[in-house]
Amino acid sequence: MSQTVIASPAIETNGGTLRLPAEAPLRLDSGATLAPLEIAYKTYGRLNAERSNAVLVCHALTGDQHAASIHPITGKPGWWNRVIGPGLPLDPDRYFIICTNVVGGCMGSTGPSSLDPATGKPYGLTFPVITIADMVRAQAMLMDALGIETLFAAVGGSMGGMQVLQWAADYPHRLRSAVCIAAAARHSAQNIAFHEVGRQAIMADPDWRGGAYEAHGVRPEKGLAVARMAAHITYLSEAALQRKFGRELQRDGLSWGFDAPDFQVESYLRYQGASFVDRFDANSYLYITRAVDYFDLAGAYDGVLAQAFRRARDVRFCVLSFSSDWLYSTGESRDIVRALNAAGCRASFVEIETDKGHDAFFLDEPVLDSALRGFFESQASRGGLA
Amino acid sequence: MSQTVIASPAIETNGGTLRLPAEAPLRLDSGATLAPLEIAYKTYGRLNAERSNAVLVCHALTGDQHAASIHPITGKPGWWNRVIGPGLPLDPDRYFIICTNVVGGCMGSTGPSSLDPATGKPYGLTFPVITIADMVRAQAMLMDALGIETLFAAVGGSMGGMQVLQWAADYPHRLRSAVCIAAAARHSAQNIAFHEVGRQAIMADPDWRGGAYEAHGVRPEKGLAVARMAAHITYLSEAALQRKFGRELQRDGLSWGFDAPDFQVESYLRYQGASFVDRFDANSYLYITRAVDYFDLAGAYDGVLAQAFRRARDVRFCVLSFSSDWLYSTGESRDIVRALNAAGCRASFVEIETDKGHDAFFLDEPVLDSALRGFFESQASRGGLA
Repeated sequence: MSQTVIASPAIETNGGTLRLPAEAPLRLDSGATLAPLEIAYKTYGRLNAERSNAVLVCHALTGDQHAASIHPITGKPGWWNRVIGPGLPLDPDRYFIICTNVVGGCMGSTGPSSLDPATGKPYGLTFPVITIADMVRAQAMLMDALGIETLFAAVGGSMGGMQVLQWAADYPHRLRSAVCIAAAARHSAQNIAFHEVGRQAIMADPDWRGGAYEAHGVRPEKGLAVARMAAHITYLSEAALQRKFGRELQRDGLSWGFDAPDFQVESYLRYQGASFVDRFDANSYLYITRAVDYFDLAGAYDGVLAQAFRRARDVRFCVLSFSSDWLYSTGESRDIVRALNAAGCRASFVEIETDKGHDAFFLDEPVLDSALRGFFESQASRGGLA
Repeated sequence: MSQTVIASPAIETNGGTLRLPAEAPLRLDSGATLAPLEIAYKTYGRLNAERSNAVLVCHALTGDQHAASIHPITGKPGWWNRVIGPGLPLDPDRYFIICTNVVGGCMGSTGPSSLDPATGKPYGLTFPVITIADMVRAQAMLMDALGIETLFAAVGGSMGGMQVLQWAADYPHRLRSAVCIAAAARHSAQNIAFHEVGRQAIMADPDWRGGAYEAHGVRPEKGLAVARMAAHITYLSEAALQRKFGRELQRDGLSWGFDAPDFQVESYLRYQGASFVDRFDANSYLYITRAVDYFDLAGAYDGVLAQAFRRARDVRFCVLSFSSDWLYSTGESRDIVRALNAAGCRASFVEIETDKGHDAFFLDEPVLDSALRGFFESQASRGGLA
């Protein structure tokens, strides 16, 4: 088996894939282990001599490691090109920025479409259920391999923000600062419900084949597209949908039929579904939504969220929310800040006024840019980064 | 062809089916006509000698005529048993209450599962696209057949409220009062988006067969269940879901798998989907959601909603909304009231504080009961009803 435990060479090549052998398994919350383990990642910038400038960027549910580089499948720019780049809040001239594909994903890290060494076939539903903590544990293993003891920062939005909180709970001594954007310390009933709709849509597709679709040379594309459409509505605010589309028609006049979308919002949604299936794996969608559903950071601390942060008093926190986000509302960010305060942690909190909804952290949102810039600048001068 | 244009006999038998011959077609907004036409309906109480006590109850998207009687398929009590009955706001001792299955429905009125007289087979997708105004036009034809010139009231929630508004716009001289609950004068982009997810889920089911599933002896049950699940989330508030289910588990501990639902909210949602397919037709779901999407009452009045009500100054309006309804928010009810005021109509408006969300109009909501009781009492004394 090829075992390329990469340290500095990876840094030279702007990322790669960490391959951990069977003897170094990922121990999962479920009690299972995952081995061999691959962690695909991208890096931007260089690790400084003090190894003090590493920033881990954590991606959201359907994101991947291509945070600031061209996506190999879609050819589109990175999902956080607005934040990572020369002159931007995360400048590769100053920071060594790392983004990993989460365990369970489908962009190179071990996931349900990976080959199960026991059978030589894709895991499918024999892949173990994973958690946000498992994703973070795998990231910590990558940091070990890269020789990074302490992160200058972990930062992420949505599920990425959950990973940041988990880092603070599990590895507070390896983290100087934590930026949690548009996230929550636990998934709500409504959010679980939306995920369940998506999973049922996938599992209702006969091409899903009990998760073994790859062996049959098919893919449950229709089910996955419906799952994406349902989820996508939750990423936007009602106001944003109304402003962007309202009741604008796709053509002059109504179609009086079902062949074509009548309204622009229908057409937009169909496009979101259709383009998603080109770049995402249905089983990964099942596993990652499950991981998010299982997320309840306080759960391991008798339900007291502040206890999760009690060892993180040396971490500086920045919590950001969007006023029109109804997936992870400002109230949920306030709960996090309240727990941080109760734990004696230092936390700044900004609720950003915007009508763009949850997805605002991907979008042109100047207040987000300046909040990130301000926080990182102050952390950099505190940490002696040029 | 059997042509039973029913007047008083129907009243005796608590409803029935109005069958209109080919010579009396329903003229549709699309320009098409529908004939022969059947309108299934239930009645409660008796039409008085003055024919002045008729109340039309309009059902919501997936409702039917069994507003206060046992549902013939599910065996469950009527969907508005809380409002219609002895001693209740709509007392059959005082009112003659009529509820029709909408055109396009699947409980006896002509819809896509009806036989197309041209082919002798179910219409399927050859059924013409219908609108809320078409549903109302069919109801008016039933009132003609029942010998009812003027309704004491039209009342309904959600899509039922849309029909009430359409009645006020199209037949103001046939209406004394109008009660519109948890509705809107037009369907928003977000609401169209949710409907489109449902339609795509149905059409993605291979058993849908381009709408001709009945000919193949199959039904797109999985797709329809997913559609229902997605829609059902929008009928409840986040707070209600959190209060009812939170993150409560179905069993002791997590399942770490995909065979069974982990969370009670998942189980609840699956049940909603599974039970829905027993009583509803997938093509009807397509057509009725489309009708709601097309609904924009101001559209025929140069976009000025007040103009739709300009002939309704003799109608007394009651507009009710629920504070936690995010499908049709209070703001949308306020828009209706504003337009009514601008048109010189008399309207009372109550926003009912509740965390139960859109579906509150089906539920134990004492303020709704008392608002309805108060409005009908005052209308009854004004109208000289004992």
